[in-house]
This record gives sequence, C-alpha cells and structure tokens, in this order.
Amino acid sequence: MTGLPPTIEKIIDSFSRFPGIGKKTAQRLALHVMKADKDSILQFAGALIDAKEKVSHCGICYNYSEEDICSICLNPMRDRALICVVEEPADVILFEKAGFKGYYHVLGGALSPLDGIGPDDLNINPLFQRLSGVTEIILATNMSVEGDTTTLYLSKLLSDYHLKITRLARGVPVGSHLEYVDEATLSRSLSERVLIHNE
Amino acid sequence: MTGLPPTIEKIIDSFSRFPGIGKKTAQRLALHVMKADKDSILQFAGALIDAKEKVSHCGICYNYSEEDICSICLNPMRDRALICVVEEPADVILFEKAGFKGYYHVLGGALSPLDGIGPDDLNINPLFQRLSGVTEIILATNMSVEGDTTTLYLSKLLSDYHLKITRLARGVPVGSHLEYVDEATLSRSLSERVLIHNE
Repeated sequence: MTGLPPTIEKIIDSFSRFPGIGKKTAQRLALHVMKADKDSILQFAGALIDAKEKVSHCGICYNYSEEDICSICLNPMRDRALICVVEEPADVILFEKAGFKGYYHVLGGALSPLDGIGPDDLNINPLFQRLSGVTEIILATNMSVEGDTTTLYLSKLLSDYHLKITRLARGVPVGSHLEYVDEATLSRSLSERVLIHNE
Repeated sequence: MTGLPPTIEKIIDSFSRFPGIGKKTAQRLALHVMKADKDSILQFAGALIDAKEKVSHCGICYNYSEEDICSICLNPMRDRALICVVEEPADVILFEKAGFKGYYHVLGGALSPLDGIGPDDLNINPLFQRLSGVTEIILATNMSVEGDTTTLYLSKLLSDYHLKITRLARGVPVGSHLEYVDEATLSRSLSERVLIHNE
C-alpha cells in the first residue's frame, strides 16, 4: 500500500501506538529514522531495550530505577522528615521541577473500585514501613475522583500514626485570569481562601 | 533533575530529537515505553535496528528496500511505460495512496546549488539507464524553487530521448474554497485553465 519495506511499516505501526501519535505523524517519524544518523538510532533502540530489561522500580519509593534503590532515595541531603505520596513516576518529575526537597512514594496508580483497582494493587503497604523519622506526609494524588478517594483512604490509615498529613492546595492556577477558571475551582479557592491581614 | 534513571532520560532525549516532538511530548512517550507491553517495545527496538542495518535503497528506483530490488520494481503488473520521478521515498507513499500504477524513480532530494546539492548528489544517472520501453516520464518534484529547478534540469536532459515528459497539474486543491487559495496558485490555475466545452 505504501511501497515501503516491512521494517519501516513495522516502525510506523509501533509509533502510531504511542499516545497522541496518528498514522501520518508515525510515518513522518519513521522516515526520520531512515534519514537520521545510524548511531543515534541504534542508541535509541538500545535504550528502549534497556528500559524494558534493566529498569525496574526502586525498592523504597517505587519510582522507576535501574538500581535496587533510586538516586533520590539514596540522596542523604534531602529532607527525611517529608514524604510526598504520588500516583505515578511522571508526578515525581513534576515535583522535582517544582523544587520539592523531601522523598517520594509512588503508589503506581489510584484506587478505582470500578476498574477493579484496590489497595492491594497499589504500593500502599510499603509506605507504612518507611514512616520512622517522618513527620509529614503530603498526599499529592490527582484532583480526580480516584485521586481524592486514594487520599481519603490513606489519610484514614495514616491518622493512627503521629504524623502531619497534608494535601496540595486547590485554587486558581498561577497566571490564570479568573474569567477562565471553572466554577468548581473558583468555589474551592473561595472556601479555602487565605488570610492576608487580620485587623 | 527529573529523578528518572539515565535510560529513561536517554529515551526522552532521543524522542525529543524527532521532528515536531518537544521535551514534554518526549517525556510522555518515554513514560509510555515504561508502561507498554515489553514484547511490543522490544519489537519496536528490533525494527529500529533492522531499519538502520538491513534497509537500504532499491537498485532500480532508489526507494527504501530491504532487498536488492523493491517490491514495486519487482511487480510485473504495473505499467512499465510510465516512470514517476519523485524527490523522496515519502513521495512514493503519497502516489501509491493516490493510485498511481506505473514505476517510480526516487532522486533522493532536489537540486539546490545554495546547499551544494548538484546533479551528482542525486540519483539522476541511473534514471537514464532505465528508459528502454518507457514512453512517459512524470516529473513530480515539489512545487518549490529546488523542485522546479530539478524538473527543468531533467526535462532538458530527457528531451534528447523520444519521450513524453509531463509534470503535475498546478491549481486549486480539491475541496478548497477559492477564498482561501493563495494568489500564486490562483494565477497558475487561471493560466492553466482547462477547456470544458468548445463551441
């Protein structure tokens, strides 16, 4: 149909399975593979193989790691009193960029009874084995029904320990005009308003 | 900076070198690699390696091919009297989809003196070794200065042979409103207008 050899067809097919990549973009990417420097493509292929064969999860925080323990958990300069609980490794990237200096705990998802995801499907138990020396747990799940359910569930379990349990502030995003903020967010930002000056 | 293992960083870096893929998309694609089925990613990596190690150019038409001669050139059911000369393998895909039934000749680019691309850098000589039995050459280069230059150059060389030499029609794209067509195209479509009825 395209007149291309099967190998290139296979690459187009693989690319088009990635999220947000359609048939036409996949074709452009595959033809870029053909034009690109051989070494860089072989390195790319090698990294893909390594990712599936060598990268696993950190034994402490469950973020992706090539070693038994990830570089964040091994870093003694971070704040050991603080654990930020997130759903996915992608969230760790965001908090790292936001400058968070404590440790993380990656749940591997959120509770979703409808999808059959219960507490045993998430890395919840290991969290309770690393609470010594911790004074605050930040429950940084997504602002979704599943995320909220997970935070509620974890906060109940954690309330038995002498810990400060916090969650992320909800409100108007930095830089946004009120006109474009949805009602639920605005309502939240109103009920959780912050004192500037008290006479 | 991201808290990800070096292998995933390498994948993000590789993805972000593809055309039209920014840092954020590259990150999303790399995290998809981690979540995706292991076999499909290993197959993808294998295809990338094959693409660089096994895929070369067809010895006749210079399209990408895993064999010495590509499947189109090997197909005896096509019209041997017709050769469509294109710049890139990507163009072959387009003409295949458009239902072209002749053979192709891939130049591997277009003449561009400013970029130092002359006739010897393109697959021009091999075209003249496959003219026996051919009655028409379609010069289907891009509608750019380089494409037009290449078509002009080739048509001069080919005029020594007893051949019909054609180029693609220029005009208003199918489905477009005249309002949105640029002036150069409209001017072309006017000067190359087609007779509907002659009294």
